[in-house]
Amino acid sequence: MIPRYSRPEMVRIWEPENKFRIWFEIEAHACDAQAELGVIPKEAAKAVWERGAFDIPRIDEIEREVKHDVIAFLTSLAEHVGEEARFVHQGMTSSDVLDTCLAVQLKQAADLLIEDVDKVLAALERRAFEYKDTPTIGRSHGIHAEPVTFGLKLAGYHAEFQRARARLVAARDEIATCAISGAVGTFANIDPRVEEHVAEKLGLKPEPVSTQVIPRDRHAMFFAVLGVVASSVERLAVEIRHLQRSEVYEAEEYFSPGQKGSSAMPHKRNPVLTENLTGLARVVRGYVTPAMENVALWHERDISHSSVERMIGPDATIVLDFALNRLAGVVDKLVVYPERMMANLDALGGLVHSQRVLLALTKKGVSREDAYRLVQRNAMPVWRGEGQFIDLLKADPEVTARLSDAEIEGLFDLGYHMAQVDTIFRRVFGRA
Amino acid sequence: MIPRYSRPEMVRIWEPENKFRIWFEIEAHACDAQAELGVIPKEAAKAVWERGAFDIPRIDEIEREVKHDVIAFLTSLAEHVGEEARFVHQGMTSSDVLDTCLAVQLKQAADLLIEDVDKVLAALERRAFEYKDTPTIGRSHGIHAEPVTFGLKLAGYHAEFQRARARLVAARDEIATCAISGAVGTFANIDPRVEEHVAEKLGLKPEPVSTQVIPRDRHAMFFAVLGVVASSVERLAVEIRHLQRSEVYEAEEYFSPGQKGSSAMPHKRNPVLTENLTGLARVVRGYVTPAMENVALWHERDISHSSVERMIGPDATIVLDFALNRLAGVVDKLVVYPERMMANLDALGGLVHSQRVLLALTKKGVSREDAYRLVQRNAMPVWRGEGQFIDLLKADPEVTARLSDAEIEGLFDLGYHMAQVDTIFRRVFGRA
Amino acid sequence: MIPRYSRPEMVRIWEPENKFRIWFEIEAHACDAQAELGVIPKEAAKAVWERGAFDIPRIDEIEREVKHDVIAFLTSLAEHVGEEARFVHQGMTSSDVLDTCLAVQLKQAADLLIEDVDKVLAALERRAFEYKDTPTIGRSHGIHAEPVTFGLKLAGYHAEFQRARARLVAARDEIATCAISGAVGTFANIDPRVEEHVAEKLGLKPEPVSTQVIPRDRHAMFFAVLGVVASSVERLAVEIRHLQRSEVYEAEEYFSPGQKGSSAMPHKRNPVLTENLTGLARVVRGYVTPAMENVALWHERDISHSSVERMIGPDATIVLDFALNRLAGVVDKLVVYPERMMANLDALGGLVHSQRVLLALTKKGVSREDAYRLVQRNAMPVWRGEGQFIDLLKADPEVTARLSDAEIEGLFDLGYHMAQVDTIFRRVFGRA
Amino acid sequence: MIPRYSRPEMVRIWEPENKFRIWFEIEAHACDAQAELGVIPKEAAKAVWERGAFDIPRIDEIEREVKHDVIAFLTSLAEHVGEEARFVHQGMTSSDVLDTCLAVQLKQAADLLIEDVDKVLAALERRAFEYKDTPTIGRSHGIHAEPVTFGLKLAGYHAEFQRARARLVAARDEIATCAISGAVGTFANIDPRVEEHVAEKLGLKPEPVSTQVIPRDRHAMFFAVLGVVASSVERLAVEIRHLQRSEVYEAEEYFSPGQKGSSAMPHKRNPVLTENLTGLARVVRGYVTPAMENVALWHERDISHSSVERMIGPDATIVLDFALNRLAGVVDKLVVYPERMMANLDALGGLVHSQRVLLALTKKGVSREDAYRLVQRNAMPVWRGEGQFIDLLKADPEVTARLSDAEIEGLFDLGYHMAQVDTIFRRVFGRA
Repeated sequence: MIPRYSRPEMVRIWEPENKFRIWFEIEAHACDAQAELGVIPKEAAKAVWERGAFDIPRIDEIEREVKHDVIAFLTSLAEHVGEEARFVHQGMTSSDVLDTCLAVQLKQAADLLIEDVDKVLAALERRAFEYKDTPTIGRSHGIHAEPVTFGLKLAGYHAEFQRARARLVAARDEIATCAISGAVGTFANIDPRVEEHVAEKLGLKPEPVSTQVIPRDRHAMFFAVLGVVASSVERLAVEIRHLQRSEVYEAEEYFSPGQKGSSAMPHKRNPVLTENLTGLARVVRGYVTPAMENVALWHERDISHSSVERMIGPDATIVLDFALNRLAGVVDKLVVYPERMMANLDALGGLVHSQRVLLALTKKGVSREDAYRLVQRNAMPVWRGEGQFIDLLKADPEVTARLSDAEIEGLFDLGYHMAQVDTIFRRVFGRA
Repeated sequence: MIPRYSRPEMVRIWEPENKFRIWFEIEAHACDAQAELGVIPKEAAKAVWERGAFDIPRIDEIEREVKHDVIAFLTSLAEHVGEEARFVHQGMTSSDVLDTCLAVQLKQAADLLIEDVDKVLAALERRAFEYKDTPTIGRSHGIHAEPVTFGLKLAGYHAEFQRARARLVAARDEIATCAISGAVGTFANIDPRVEEHVAEKLGLKPEPVSTQVIPRDRHAMFFAVLGVVASSVERLAVEIRHLQRSEVYEAEEYFSPGQKGSSAMPHKRNPVLTENLTGLARVVRGYVTPAMENVALWHERDISHSSVERMIGPDATIVLDFALNRLAGVVDKLVVYPERMMANLDALGGLVHSQRVLLALTKKGVSREDAYRLVQRNAMPVWRGEGQFIDLLKADPEVTARLSDAEIEGLFDLGYHMAQVDTIFRRVFGRA
Repeated sequence: MIPRYSRPEMVRIWEPENKFRIWFEIEAHACDAQAELGVIPKEAAKAVWERGAFDIPRIDEIEREVKHDVIAFLTSLAEHVGEEARFVHQGMTSSDVLDTCLAVQLKQAADLLIEDVDKVLAALERRAFEYKDTPTIGRSHGIHAEPVTFGLKLAGYHAEFQRARARLVAARDEIATCAISGAVGTFANIDPRVEEHVAEKLGLKPEPVSTQVIPRDRHAMFFAVLGVVASSVERLAVEIRHLQRSEVYEAEEYFSPGQKGSSAMPHKRNPVLTENLTGLARVVRGYVTPAMENVALWHERDISHSSVERMIGPDATIVLDFALNRLAGVVDKLVVYPERMMANLDALGGLVHSQRVLLALTKKGVSREDAYRLVQRNAMPVWRGEGQFIDLLKADPEVTARLSDAEIEGLFDLGYHMAQVDTIFRRVFGRA
Repeated sequence: MIPRYSRPEMVRIWEPENKFRIWFEIEAHACDAQAELGVIPKEAAKAVWERGAFDIPRIDEIEREVKHDVIAFLTSLAEHVGEEARFVHQGMTSSDVLDTCLAVQLKQAADLLIEDVDKVLAALERRAFEYKDTPTIGRSHGIHAEPVTFGLKLAGYHAEFQRARARLVAARDEIATCAISGAVGTFANIDPRVEEHVAEKLGLKPEPVSTQVIPRDRHAMFFAVLGVVASSVERLAVEIRHLQRSEVYEAEEYFSPGQKGSSAMPHKRNPVLTENLTGLARVVRGYVTPAMENVALWHERDISHSSVERMIGPDATIVLDFALNRLAGVVDKLVVYPERMMANLDALGGLVHSQRVLLALTKKGVSREDAYRLVQRNAMPVWRGEGQFIDLLKADPEVTARLSDAEIEGLFDLGYHMAQVDTIFRRVFGRA
C-alpha cells in the first residue's frame, strides 16, 4: 500500500489507532459479559471502561521485549487500568482478540467498498441515461459487429457492478464473525455467552467452531471476491482505453488544463487513469492466491496466515477502494464524442447490416447456407476497399432476384437495432 | 483432465454428446418461442423436435472446413431436419448457443459438486459423533496447546464444508443465466421473449444485459469458489497427513490388503490419498486467476476466454469432483487410534494444563504478569526433559504459597476441557 | 490438454509408450552399471536389454491391484525378462525412475519448445526485413506517438523471442538431472557411480543431492519460464489483435476461402487465432503457481507434487507448443496493409511531429517549459478537429518568431524517424 | 511493504532519495554524451553536474500540478541548474529515465538479495558440517523411511540455495539494461551512443530494442525468480516447523529469555519465525502473476505496468530480503537435539531397515515379489504395536530359511546408511 493509491478513509481502518481501539472494545465488552456471569467483579469491568486506555509508543516498546503484540497491548492497558487489569483477557487467547478485530476491520473495509461501488453505479446510471439513444458500433473480436447505443454499453457495466455489490455484501457476511473461544476453541476457560455478547456488541455473528482462529476459508472467499470485483474494474477500464485509442477516439478521460501527457510529445492525451486501473486490478488479483494458500493451516492453527494478512488485508482493500473511486470519477467526467461514434459506425460501408440482409434472404426462401454465401461474397470486397456494401448488393443479380432496391435500403436502418433498448434498461435500472 | 483423476459422472457433462444435446435443446426451444411469436412457422419448430438429430463425426468433418463449431452443428442439424432448418437459429448468434450451453453445463457440474460435498458432510458428521468425546491434543503452531476431542476437530471441518456447500449453491446461481440476445445483445433480430422461454425451459434466468456473451465476471466468481472449496479440501487433507506422521500416528488412511506403500521399503504405509488431495487443490486453485483474467474481454466480446474455458471448465470441475469424492472416502474409512491420541496428549508431562494454572494463580490474586512468569519458569524445564510439570509446580514455593497440592492436581483434569463440546456440536449439527 | 490445442509431436512425449520406454532405459542402464560394479551378474544386465519389454495393458492391470505404478511396471518387466529380473531396480526406489524419467520428458519437451521458438524467430525475421522500411505509427497508451516502421516492431518481438529461447535453454538445463540415489538419497543401497552412468547415457547431469526426489525448485523454475514465454506470446498476439481492429486495420490474420467469421454476421473477419493465443497464455501462466507450491515438500519428500505434475507437465508443454506453432503460422501468413498504415499515420494532422517542433524551439533558445506550452497549445485544437497542426503552428506568432515556414515544414519529415532503423536491425539480427 | 518485514538496506533502494539520485545521474551522463557528440554545449553538461540538485518537496508540489513525475523532476532540476537546463533530457522521453532507473534499482536489489543468499549459504554450510554425521530418520510422506544424517539434510538445502543464487545472478542480468531511445525507441531525436554511454556508466547493457519502454518480459522473469527463491525459503521453513512439532521435537528455533509464546499458555514455544517465513513466501509468490500480466503492454507501451511495479518492485524485494535474512538467522541459531533424533529413529522397532532385509533376501535368491511379501508381513504388525521388527523376522521360518540370526542383526546397522555422506558433501561443498 502506497500513498499514491490510498484514500485516508480506508487507510484509517488499518492504522494502529483503529486496531487498538477495536482490541480495547473486545476486551471491555468481554469483561462486561464476564462480570454479568459472575466470573469477574463488576467493578473490574467498570474500571476497564473508565480507565482503559492505550499508548501506542508504549505498546511498541513492550512488544520489542516480549515479541508478542497482544501481551504488549495488555501490559500497556494494565498500566492505565491498574490492579483490576488482571481480570482482563481472562480465559481468552490472543487470537480471540486478533481474529475478531480483523473481522471488524474487514467489515469496515467492506462497508467502504460497497459505498465505492455505489458511486460507480450512480455515475454509470447517470451517463447510461444520458447516452441511452446514442448509436455506436458494437464490436466483437475488436471488429465491427452491429450497432448498439452507448447507453446500452454503460447499462451492461451497471449490471456488472450490481453483481459486484451483491458479492461484496456476501463477502462481508462471510467474514463478520466473532471468536472468543479460548486457546483451542473449546471454551474451556470462558463461557460461550461471552462470545455471544461481544459478537452482538460489534455487529458480528458468533463463529460456530473456531479452533483458536476463525477458519481462513472465510478470508479466502473475501479476497477472492475482491479479485473478481477488481476484474470488473479492469473490464470497464479496458473499454475506455479502447474508446480513447487515436483511431477510435469515441470517448476520452477528462484532461485537465495544465496537465501534460508526455514529457517529450506535447500533443499527447493518454488514458492514464484507466491504464492505471488496469494495473491496479492485476495487483488486487495477485492477493487472491496467497489468501487461498492461507486456508490449510496446521491443526488448530499455525500463524503463517498472519504475515500474509498483515500485507494483503490493507493492500487489497486500500487499492480496490482507490480503484473504485478513481473509476467512479473517470465515468463521471468521461468526455464522450457521439459524432465520432456515428462516423466510426458508418466507416465500414454498411457492412454492419450484413445479418439483416442474411435474414431477409432466408425469409425470402433462400437456404441459410446459400444466403450466407451470397452476403459474404458481397461483404468481403468492402474490406478490401472495393466499394460500399449496399451498392454491391444492389449489383448482385442473385440478391436482386430476391430483394428490391427499396427492400435492401430498408435493411440499412439504424433504428431497427435500438428497438429493445428500453426493455434492457428496464431490466437493469427498473426504468427506461 | 486425465482419467486417473476423473469420475464418469462429471466427465459426461463435458463430452460432445452432452454439449450437442444442450445445443439442440436451446435451438429447439428457441424455435418453439419463435413459432409462438409467429416469427417462424409452427411446422418448422415441430420438425426440429421431430427430425432434429446430430451426428458428431459429421459435425467434426464440417468444422474442419468452415472452422466454426456452431455453423458445423447447424449444418449437420439441417441435414436431418431438412428444409425447415432454415428457420433454426434465426436472429441468434453462436454465443447465444455456446454461452447458454456453458451455463447449463456449469449448473450440472455444480449440482454434482454439491452432491459431493454432501457426501463429505455425511462422512464428517458420522465420524464426528463417533469420536465426539475422544480426547486428543489441540495444537497451535504444531505445538501441543490444550486438549480437544477428535469429534470437535471433525465438527470444525463439517462447519467449513457447510460453508463450501453454501458457496457452491451461490456459485451455481451466479452462472445459471441464459442469453439469447443476438450478435451484440440488442435483441435486434430476436424477441426477448425467446430468451425468457428458453431460460425457463432450461432452469436458467435471463441474463439482464448480454453483449453477445454472458459477462465473464460470473464465471470468474464460479471458479473462484471452486478454488476456495479446493482449499478447504486441502486443509482437511493436511490435517490427516499430519495425524498419520510416524511420530504422531493418531489416525491413518485405510491401507488395503495387497497394497504396497513403496517399491523399496516394504514397511511403508503412506497417506497417499491425502497427499494427492493436497496436489489436486493446487491444481484447482491454479485455474482461478485465468478465470479472472477472462473478465476483461474487449468491447462486446472477444474470444480469448474460450480456450481458457475449454480447458478449465472440464478440468476444474472434474478434478474437484474427484477430490471431494476421494475425501469423502478417506474420512469414511479413516482408521483412528484413540489410545495413541491419549498417549500423545500425556507425552508432555502435563504442560498442556499451563493456562489453567495461570488462571488459578490470578484468581488467587497474583498479577497476570507474575503468574505468567511463575508458570513459564516451571514449564520450560519440562521441554528440556527435566521433570514433570506437576511435580515442578508442587516444588515451587511461590506456587505452593497460593495453591495446595490438591488444588494443583485439580487443575490437571481433562474433563474440564470437554465441558462445551455439546454446545459446539449443537451449533454445527443442531444436535449433540 | 485437449486435442484441439495439441500437436502429436508433444503429445507423444507424454504418452505411456514414451514413459515406459524411458523407465526401461533407466533400469537397463542401471543394470549395466551394477553389473560393471559387480553388484549383479553381467548376464542379468544382458538379459534385461535382450528380453526386456513391457506391456501397457498388463501394467494397468497390475497397478489396479497393487496401486503402485513402478511396482506394476517392474512386475510386467519381470514377466518378460524372467528370473534375472530380480536384479533389476536393486537398491533403487520408485522416485529414481519417476523423477529421472520426468527429467528426460521435460528435456524432450524443452527441445521441442526451442524448435518452436526457432520457427517464430524465423517468421519474425523474414517479415521484419520485408517491412523494414514500412512506416507506421508508434503508439504509446494506444495514442499516436511518433513514427516507427513495421519492421522495427517485428524486430522488437524477435529480440523478445531470442530471450525466450535463451530462457528455455536455461530451463532445460535446470531440469536435466538424474537421481539414482535410493530411498532417501543416501546411496546406502546403490553406488553413486550407477547414477553417473545412467545420467551420462540419458544426457543428464547427476543431481548433487536428491532426497528420494529431485528437488522441485528446479521444476518450479521450469514452469515459471513457460509462463514468461507464454506472456511473450500474448504480447505479440495482442499487438496483432490491435492491428486488426476495424478502425486500425493495418494487418490481418490470414482468412482462408470457405472460412466463416460468424454464424450470424457474414461480413466478419475476426482475429480468432491471436485471441486464442491470448487465452492460451492465461492457461500456461495458471500453471506457474501450482508448480511453485510444489517446492515445499515435507522432509525428504511427500507426493503432493505428483498429481500436479501429471497434469501441468503435459498441459503446460502441449499448450505452449501448440501456441508457439500457431504464432509462427500467424506471423508467417499475416496480411499487412502498408497503405492503411500510412493513412493512419497521417490521420492526426501531423500531431505526431510535436516533439520535433518542441526540440527545434528549444534549440532556438526557448526554455523547455515555454516551448512545451507553445507546442501544446497548437496541438490541442487538432484533437478537437479544429485544423491541421502545421497550419496552426504557422499561424502562431510566438512560433513564427523563432521558426520560418520552411523550418516548420522540415520538421514534418518522416525520414527523420527512420535514421536508426539499420542500427537497431544490426543489434537484433546482426545485419541490416 | 510494512516496517515489520523490512530492512533499511533494501528500503533505501526504493526511497525517493535514491530514485531521484539515479534520475539525476541518468540525465547528467546523457548530457555528457550529448556534449561529446556536439549536440549540446559542453558547458551545459558541466553545469548539470555542478549545479544539478533536486528538492523532493518541490518535486511533489510541481507534480500535483502537472500530474507527471518526470516533468516535475526536470522542472525542479531546472530551478537549480538555471538556463542550461534546457539542454537536459533532450531527445529523451520519460521512460528513458524511469525504465533505466528501475533497472538500476532492481540491480541494486538483486545485489542485496545475492548477499542475503550468501548468508543463508554460510549458515547452512556451518551447520551442515556440525551435524554431518548426526543420524536422523529420513521421512517420505511424513512416514519414517530410512536413516540419513542431519548434515545431509542441510547439505540438500545448501545445494538448493546455490541454485537460488545462480538464478538471482541470471535474473539480475535479465533486468540490467538501459534504454535511452526516445519516444518510441527509434533514436530519432537521440544518438544511440548516448544510450551506450549511460549504460556503461551505470553498469548496464544497452537494450537491443526498446519501444519507449524496456520490454516487460525481463521484469516478469525477474519476479518469477523471486517467486522460486521464496518457495525455497518456504521448503526450509516447513522442514524446521516439522522438526519442532511436539511429537518430533528434533530441532527448535532459538527462544530468547523473556520471550512469550502465547498470551494464554505459558508453556508454549512456537516456531513463529519459520511460520512467518511460510507466509512471506506466499506473499512473494503472489507478485509473480501480476508481473507476467504486465508483459502484454499495448503497442509500443501502455502504462498499466507502472502501478503494479510501484507496488511489487519494493514489496517483493523488501519481503524477500527480510525473509532471507530471517532464514539465515534461524539456521544460524537453530537448537538441534541429536538425542531426540536418535530416539525417533529407533521408535519404529527397526522398521526403517526393511529395504535392507528385502535386498538381502533377493540376494539369497528369493524373487523380488516374494521377498517383498515376506518383509511386508513382518513389518505390518509392528505398526499395530505387535512386536519389534527384528524379533518377528527371526521368528519367521521362511525368513530364517534364508538368513541366519547374525545376518539379520547385521542388516540393522546404522552405519551402513552413512557410507556416502562424504561423497555427497563433496558434491555440494567441494569438501567433506
